[in-house]
Amino acid sequence: MKSRRPKQAVVLLSGGLDSAVALYYAKAKGYNCHCLIFDYGQRHKKEVLQAQKIAKAARCSYKILKINFPWKGSALLDKKIKIPQRTAKGVPVTYVPARNIIFLSFAVSFAETIKAGAVFIGAHSQDYSGYPDCRPEFLSAFRRMAKAGTLGRYEVLAPLLRKNKSRIIMMGKKLGVPFELTLSCYNGGKHPCGKCDSCQYRAKGFKEAGEVDPLIK
Amino acid sequence: MKSRRPKQAVVLLSGGLDSAVALYYAKAKGYNCHCLIFDYGQRHKKEVLQAQKIAKAARCSYKILKINFPWKGSALLDKKIKIPQRTAKGVPVTYVPARNIIFLSFAVSFAETIKAGAVFIGAHSQDYSGYPDCRPEFLSAFRRMAKAGTLGRYEVLAPLLRKNKSRIIMMGKKLGVPFELTLSCYNGGKHPCGKCDSCQYRAKGFKEAGEVDPLIK
Repeated sequence: MKSRRPKQAVVLLSGGLDSAVALYYAKAKGYNCHCLIFDYGQRHKKEVLQAQKIAKAARCSYKILKINFPWKGSALLDKKIKIPQRTAKGVPVTYVPARNIIFLSFAVSFAETIKAGAVFIGAHSQDYSGYPDCRPEFLSAFRRMAKAGTLGRYEVLAPLLRKNKSRIIMMGKKLGVPFELTLSCYNGGKHPCGKCDSCQYRAKGFKEAGEVDPLIK
Repeated sequence: MKSRRPKQAVVLLSGGLDSAVALYYAKAKGYNCHCLIFDYGQRHKKEVLQAQKIAKAARCSYKILKINFPWKGSALLDKKIKIPQRTAKGVPVTYVPARNIIFLSFAVSFAETIKAGAVFIGAHSQDYSGYPDCRPEFLSAFRRMAKAGTLGRYEVLAPLLRKNKSRIIMMGKKLGVPFELTLSCYNGGKHPCGKCDSCQYRAKGFKEAGEVDPLIK
C-alpha cells in the first residue's frame, strides 16, 4: 500500500474568534494545519499568546513571525490613537493599511515553501465592511495576483467570507472551537469591554446564535 | 501663494543596480522619495548597507524593515543551498517564494500611511524571467489587488519593467546613479564573482551599454 502525505495547509491565526473557526474548519476538511501567527506590534501581546493556545488546543504546529512596522497610522499599532467606542462608519481608525495583504503574502510564501495545497484566512465581509482587505473582491484579486506572482500550486480559501458573526459562531460551535481561548476586544482586557466595535459584533453574534460567550462572566 | 506638498513616493531599495536606477528615476520625476529597505536574512548583509549608502547618496530618507522568515527554501535565505554558477533554466534556486509580493505589500502599507502617491519597484522581466514575481502580468495583477484591498490612492510603478539590463544601465548613467555603490553578486564578495547569474547579467549589460562597471578593477 502506498502511503499518502496528508493535505497540508497554512492557516492565518490571530487569536480572535474568526481565525480559530477557520482553523477548526480546515482541520475538519482533513488538512494538516500549520498556523502562522504575527507579532506585529498589535496593542495587545495577549493576542499572540491566545493564538498559540488555540494552535495547541487544535494540536497544530505554529510559527510566529515578528514584524516591526517602522511606521504607525492605525489605532491598532499606535497607542496614541484612541479606540472608538461605537461602531464606526466608513474605514475605522483600527484599519492597518494592507495588513491582510501582508499576512496573506507571508502565508503564500510559507505555503509554497512547504508545498501546502491551501492557505486559510478567517476574513469575512459581513461585520468589518469598513476594512477594504476583508472584501470578497479583494480576495478574488489576491488569488489572481498570487497565481501570477508565485508558482501558485495552492488555493487561498476564506471559508467565512460571506457569513455573519452568528453563523460563524454556530459553525465554530459544531466544530468544537474553544471560544474561551479567543479574544476579540480591541482594548485587550481579560474580559470583553463590551464597548468597542469588535466586542459589539461578538456579543451580537453570540446572542443571535443562541449561544453563551464563555468570556462573559 | 499656496505652498504645495511635493509628490511623495515609496521606493523599494535592495542595494542592487536596478532599484538604484528606479530610485534615481523617481527623483528625476520630481518625487520626494522614502526608501524602504528589507533586512530579511539575505545571505549578504552587505546589501542592506549598500542600500543605505545609495539612499544617502540620493539624499533620501529610508526605513529598514527586518523580517525573520521562520522558514527557508531558497538559496538566498539558506546557506546550505549552493548558488548555481551558470544561468539556470526555469525557476532558479535563488527564488524566494512571494518575495516581491511581500515587499510590495509593505510598500503599499507605508505609502498609504504617509499618503504617498506612488510606489516604485525596480523589477524587470527581461533578465530574471525565472522569477514569477518580476513579470508584467504579476505587476498588473498586484495593482488590481492593491486597489481592491487598500484605499488605493497611489500608483504602483515599475519603470524598468520592459527594459533589459543594458538599457537600464544606460538610463542609470544618464540619471547619475552611483553604480559603484550597487551590488549584484549573489556570492556577496567585494567584487563581482563573475560566475553567478546576477554577475553574468550585469557584465553583459555593461558591455552592451558600452560602459565600464566601476566594480570591476
